[in-house]
Amino acid sequence: MQVLDLPAHAGLRVDGARLWNSLMELARIGATHKGGVCRLALTELDKKGRDLFVAWAKGVGCTVRIDAIGNIFARRAGLRDDRPPVMTGSHIDTQPTGGKFDGNYGVLAGLEVLRTLNDNDVRTVAPLEVAVWTNEEGSRFVPVMMGSGVFAGAFTLDYALMQKDREGISVRDALASIGYEGEHVAAHRVGAYFEAHIEQGPVLEANDKVIGVVQGALGQRWYDVTIEGMEAHAGPTPMELRRDALLVAADLIREVNRIAISHAPHGRGTVGWVDVHPNSRNVIPGRVKLTVDFRAADDATLDEMDAALRDMCAKSSLPVAVDEVVYFAPQPFDASLVDSVRDSANALAYTSMDAISGAGHDAVYLARVAPAAMIFVPCKDGISHNEIEDAQADHLEAGCNVLLQVMLRAANAPVQEGAQA
Amino acid sequence: MQVLDLPAHAGLRVDGARLWNSLMELARIGATHKGGVCRLALTELDKKGRDLFVAWAKGVGCTVRIDAIGNIFARRAGLRDDRPPVMTGSHIDTQPTGGKFDGNYGVLAGLEVLRTLNDNDVRTVAPLEVAVWTNEEGSRFVPVMMGSGVFAGAFTLDYALMQKDREGISVRDALASIGYEGEHVAAHRVGAYFEAHIEQGPVLEANDKVIGVVQGALGQRWYDVTIEGMEAHAGPTPMELRRDALLVAADLIREVNRIAISHAPHGRGTVGWVDVHPNSRNVIPGRVKLTVDFRAADDATLDEMDAALRDMCAKSSLPVAVDEVVYFAPQPFDASLVDSVRDSANALAYTSMDAISGAGHDAVYLARVAPAAMIFVPCKDGISHNEIEDAQADHLEAGCNVLLQVMLRAANAPVQEGAQA
Repeated sequence: MQVLDLPAHAGLRVDGARLWNSLMELARIGATHKGGVCRLALTELDKKGRDLFVAWAKGVGCTVRIDAIGNIFARRAGLRDDRPPVMTGSHIDTQPTGGKFDGNYGVLAGLEVLRTLNDNDVRTVAPLEVAVWTNEEGSRFVPVMMGSGVFAGAFTLDYALMQKDREGISVRDALASIGYEGEHVAAHRVGAYFEAHIEQGPVLEANDKVIGVVQGALGQRWYDVTIEGMEAHAGPTPMELRRDALLVAADLIREVNRIAISHAPHGRGTVGWVDVHPNSRNVIPGRVKLTVDFRAADDATLDEMDAALRDMCAKSSLPVAVDEVVYFAPQPFDASLVDSVRDSANALAYTSMDAISGAGHDAVYLARVAPAAMIFVPCKDGISHNEIEDAQADHLEAGCNVLLQVMLRAANAPVQEGAQA
Repeated sequence: MQVLDLPAHAGLRVDGARLWNSLMELARIGATHKGGVCRLALTELDKKGRDLFVAWAKGVGCTVRIDAIGNIFARRAGLRDDRPPVMTGSHIDTQPTGGKFDGNYGVLAGLEVLRTLNDNDVRTVAPLEVAVWTNEEGSRFVPVMMGSGVFAGAFTLDYALMQKDREGISVRDALASIGYEGEHVAAHRVGAYFEAHIEQGPVLEANDKVIGVVQGALGQRWYDVTIEGMEAHAGPTPMELRRDALLVAADLIREVNRIAISHAPHGRGTVGWVDVHPNSRNVIPGRVKLTVDFRAADDATLDEMDAALRDMCAKSSLPVAVDEVVYFAPQPFDASLVDSVRDSANALAYTSMDAISGAGHDAVYLARVAPAAMIFVPCKDGISHNEIEDAQADHLEAGCNVLLQVMLRAANAPVQEGAQA
């Protein structure tokens, strides 16, 4: 068996067909009529998916460990098992009307990397791990990114375990019922974390690129906004005597868009949810509630967007209440790992571009406790969280080849001063 | 008993306290905890309200007739019963969370006119009638203004009788179950029709006037509008690659308002109902449906408003479908009856102003088959169709005094050429 030698292993390639077949096989568990997948976290279907992954991982010689929040770690031994592992992973739970690739790709790309190394008798210095993080989607239990959040200390294990679904079943009980409540261990050290993922957006496709070199994740500030007007009959109430809450809402929707555009390239602003009261054809709306979702690459920009929103609301002709309900800090990824992704894409002659993650991913939490980076590949029309989510086999193979190279580089990198402290 | 002599009867006044007490007594039938009334058309409560009115009408010497759609006509004989009656009336059905005055005031003001004439031994040349129109509100059965619509030939009796409520009960069966299915008679001729009503808007109060001299009713054009965008994740989708249906909706909401304002004083435009799909906080809206309600005093103005709406939709960055779903023609009231309302208010030294009915009323249908006019009185804060609907006793009394005078004038007016043809 060969020890890692970069020049020698630059020619290693994953088996794209095997990766695709694994994706399709996993997608049969919870398959929907429309070609998607419904495999909610900690259900019997999730158990079947987990069991399949565990069987595959053991089949490639991994040792498998489950932690107390149900995260699965499949470990391939290194030459120096005292070193922290180079980890990759993602999730296999889906949205209720989810697709075959979101999350599943990152997990099975990791498995394909291990299979390729086995095929070629390659050993790495540091051990490798493929992680399956519990309940990334948050469809059944909140908070989202639960398993990686516990691992990274974003919230406590006890907090996560006591969360309940709509039927009142706790995470603790759901884990026990599918047999994935592992031993309570402290999160282990990670030498480097990579996550391959479909982009879930349209940028790569619009730019005709195969690999997105992800710089980091946007910070997020979410708001609940309530506009108080006065409901009145549409007929007898002249325009000048109205207090139409929907008119103010319309201005706000426009302004959220303007604020985001004025903070290009990464500023994003969305009003996704609107509730009109009483929502009757011939009644002037007396109250409108809506949500605002601001995203940006740094806190200074988010602060400016926040100030612009509050300024407009304060100047409104009707009372507007603004409550901030969610904050995720911007999370840059590790510069040298990001460079490694870019270099590997170049070395493999894949078209690539710098990208930013607008959504949350397990990697965003992992970046709090380890050097981390992500690899994006295109998905058709940018559509995800949808049964018609689709991706090209050659793109998935390309992302997996990049993942192979960056993991090889990280796993054989010279250990830096203090890295094993 | 005196025959009508205008100078002699200019000093006649209704009993405001009696009117108020009748309103409060009727309001006990279906009274709600919040001080309103829930007395849906053709329910047991409606029957109790009808029975009370019929008893009162018989108590003042009226003959009572029910027609095939359940309209009640209480007739006070005139000196010349071959003349068509001078009629007043309104409705006593309410919204589910309705008030004490909407409709009920017009009926009981008519009753109070008859009581006042009895008290003063006044006979009129033409007979007088007080009508209670079936199902004006349309809350339980559509179409709205059902009884007056059948009477005026806006739609057929059979069409009205076959309409069903949400439980599948037809108007025919509901009428039978409360014993108000009358004989099937053709609508009788009406010499003049007056309707006293709370304004249901804020104009009189804003102008500090007691009597609204209603010139007519606005025409209405209602639309269903659908904007087709593309739903996408709020995070990974940059602003320039979005097809956000809600942004187009926001522009449309603003434009509907602008169009109405540019057609002052009577142009009105309202977006009252909005449906956002998928209506999720972090998903860019892929489809928005909304309603548009345009009103104006004449068809030429409505045509301009329609053209402006369609023009904007055609120029939209996303496909916008516009379906017109309702049209009510503008309905001017009879000029000489409108003058009579104004003159009577002046003679009684009530402050008054010209007004327009933005909403539908039974009088609007009656105006198709008889000279018609309306008398508005203020309601608190312009609020109606609400349990907190309120009106001042002195305003209600003032409107009733105007009603008394205009009915006396009409009932003793010289018969014009061909009026009895």
